Amino acid sequence: MTSKTAYNVAVVGATGAVGQKIMEILEKKDLPINELKLLSSKRSAGSKLTFKNKEIIVEEAVPESFSGIDIALFSAGGSVSKKLAPEAVKHGAVVVDNTSAFRMDENVPLVVPEVNESDIKSHNGIIANPNCSTIQMVAALKPIQDAYGLSRVIVSTYQAVSGAGNQASEELEKQTEQYLNGEEMTAEILPVKGDKKHTPIAFNALPQIDVFQDNGYTFEEMKMINETKKIMHLPELPVAATCVRLPFFTSHAESVYVDVEKDGLTVKDIWKVLEEADGVILEDDPATQTYPTPLSASDKEEVFVGRVRKDPDLDKGFHLWVVSDNLVKGAAWNTIQIAERLIKNNWF
Amino acid sequence: MTSKTAYNVAVVGATGAVGQKIMEILEKKDLPINELKLLSSKRSAGSKLTFKNKEIIVEEAVPESFSGIDIALFSAGGSVSKKLAPEAVKHGAVVVDNTSAFRMDENVPLVVPEVNESDIKSHNGIIANPNCSTIQMVAALKPIQDAYGLSRVIVSTYQAVSGAGNQASEELEKQTEQYLNGEEMTAEILPVKGDKKHTPIAFNALPQIDVFQDNGYTFEEMKMINETKKIMHLPELPVAATCVRLPFFTSHAESVYVDVEKDGLTVKDIWKVLEEADGVILEDDPATQTYPTPLSASDKEEVFVGRVRKDPDLDKGFHLWVVSDNLVKGAAWNTIQIAERLIKNNWF
Repeated sequence: MTSKTAYNVAVVGATGAVGQKIMEILEKKDLPINELKLLSSKRSAGSKLTFKNKEIIVEEAVPESFSGIDIALFSAGGSVSKKLAPEAVKHGAVVVDNTSAFRMDENVPLVVPEVNESDIKSHNGIIANPNCSTIQMVAALKPIQDAYGLSRVIVSTYQAVSGAGNQASEELEKQTEQYLNGEEMTAEILPVKGDKKHTPIAFNALPQIDVFQDNGYTFEEMKMINETKKIMHLPELPVAATCVRLPFFTSHAESVYVDVEKDGLTVKDIWKVLEEADGVILEDDPATQTYPTPLSASDKEEVFVGRVRKDPDLDKGFHLWVVSDNLVKGAAWNTIQIAERLIKNNWF
Repeated sequence: MTSKTAYNVAVVGATGAVGQKIMEILEKKDLPINELKLLSSKRSAGSKLTFKNKEIIVEEAVPESFSGIDIALFSAGGSVSKKLAPEAVKHGAVVVDNTSAFRMDENVPLVVPEVNESDIKSHNGIIANPNCSTIQMVAALKPIQDAYGLSRVIVSTYQAVSGAGNQASEELEKQTEQYLNGEEMTAEILPVKGDKKHTPIAFNALPQIDVFQDNGYTFEEMKMINETKKIMHLPELPVAATCVRLPFFTSHAESVYVDVEKDGLTVKDIWKVLEEADGVILEDDPATQTYPTPLSASDKEEVFVGRVRKDPDLDKGFHLWVVSDNLVKGAAWNTIQIAERLIKNNWF
């Protein structure tokens, strides 16, 4: 379409954890918005939310909601996206979808702007926002791949409860109080809302994020494996993942081990490319105990990397500790960045 | 020495987290104890502790304390062991040392009974108990190595605060209350007592356990790397480790990735050797969301393994999730097991 000066934007899932964060970031950014439409399930419709000092009534998302919308940001779960994203496209909107519904669809680009911005161009109405834990990892891997090549990636994650939604955060808070009061902890949400069994997360670690697949991996682990290959255009790169939920509210951390292709590299060589990388901040100084943590990375847009170490046994092995806010860069901010680049390049 | 019917046993560091756990386990076990002597620093001397319904006054540990002692269990920190373990040996005791003081000494066997019991035999008065995070990992790796061979180990840990002592557990509790009350969290102990900087652990993850070494690794990481090679008698095995402290009180979890030597193995092949392994319990059923967690493993003696998965990309790669109580199998119980085997085999 012809470049506009301002765009009609819809947020689908406006009352959820990611929807709220999208509005919070849109407040601070200069995305040229003409009208902001807030959409939700029937249950949450009617809520009033404030955007730039203006009250907006949340409406139920139906196919007709997208009439006149230029960009629709979806964060209301996979089933909502599957049903309504194609309707939004039919009504002329470009969808940035933050669910897993279309990520592995070969007709849908899966984008982290610092890594594969130009993939946006090839969209057919839908652009997928990757899984939170994938986004921060590929942001850190991309500069290493470009400079030195990667031949293997093995990641173990340390993931915040907010990735499972607001109810999971409330559950952590409730269980923590129960534990400190000597009461039995009650679990109804985690590890996965609606799954067969629930286990306390407070003062615990749950090696299950999302439901199990037939191959014994969780869906979260398979997302990290498959999405990383797609975003980086490295279908043959071996990626191994273990995903673990932990008792903190915000930001995911990842212990990432890579084999590089080039030999003889030092920690300084890895530091150099990370320091120069777009969207990445290096926080790595053992002498002053400097490294990122979930608390230090919270509410920030960047991906933080520390604890870079060379394997003492193997010349091509390196460790990284990668931390980022799962609701910001891992969801809302990456979604908005995609919309920004779409507008900037007029790739409608 | 000639086999005795009962032994004089000293616990050095009786008032600490591990010392307390040693007494708790000794209460339940049938180690043939004649006299139990409880020793501590000058500061804690005079405390009264109860063992098998008898009150025992804790005495200050000095060289003469070990006169008449057959077995001395040390858990009072590396500097105490360095000073007093040789004195205990001079007085005729066999020392089982739970600190890092002698672990890498080539004249000191480093023992996990399920893995290398017969190494006890070669002691010269001191037997070292490995680091908690190492013990549980080698217990799970040993049956795989024996059956299929290992060519590479990459581990990321999820470690409980109690590994840093009682004060660290108190700090987690205090910070948790501060956070829930909306107060600023105060940090004085973790990540490492006496280190330059302290960072809150509550609702956070700290990628530092023990002090940093010149190579950028923490001492905990180097312990896992070096101790694993020594215990398994595999000096050439590449072992890579990242150690992370997390906000739970008890039990360490580990995401362990291994390359095996044999090709064509399945998850069932790995399950089989773990099921038959001494001291290991397999808890692995994705269909019923069955896997060990720090809470489920607490106060138990075994090493629990779940989430066994074959790498979808690489035939020889497998994931394991290994959980065990860091104060029980990771410290007190392994120490007592060594003493039991010493007695059973009369390897004094």
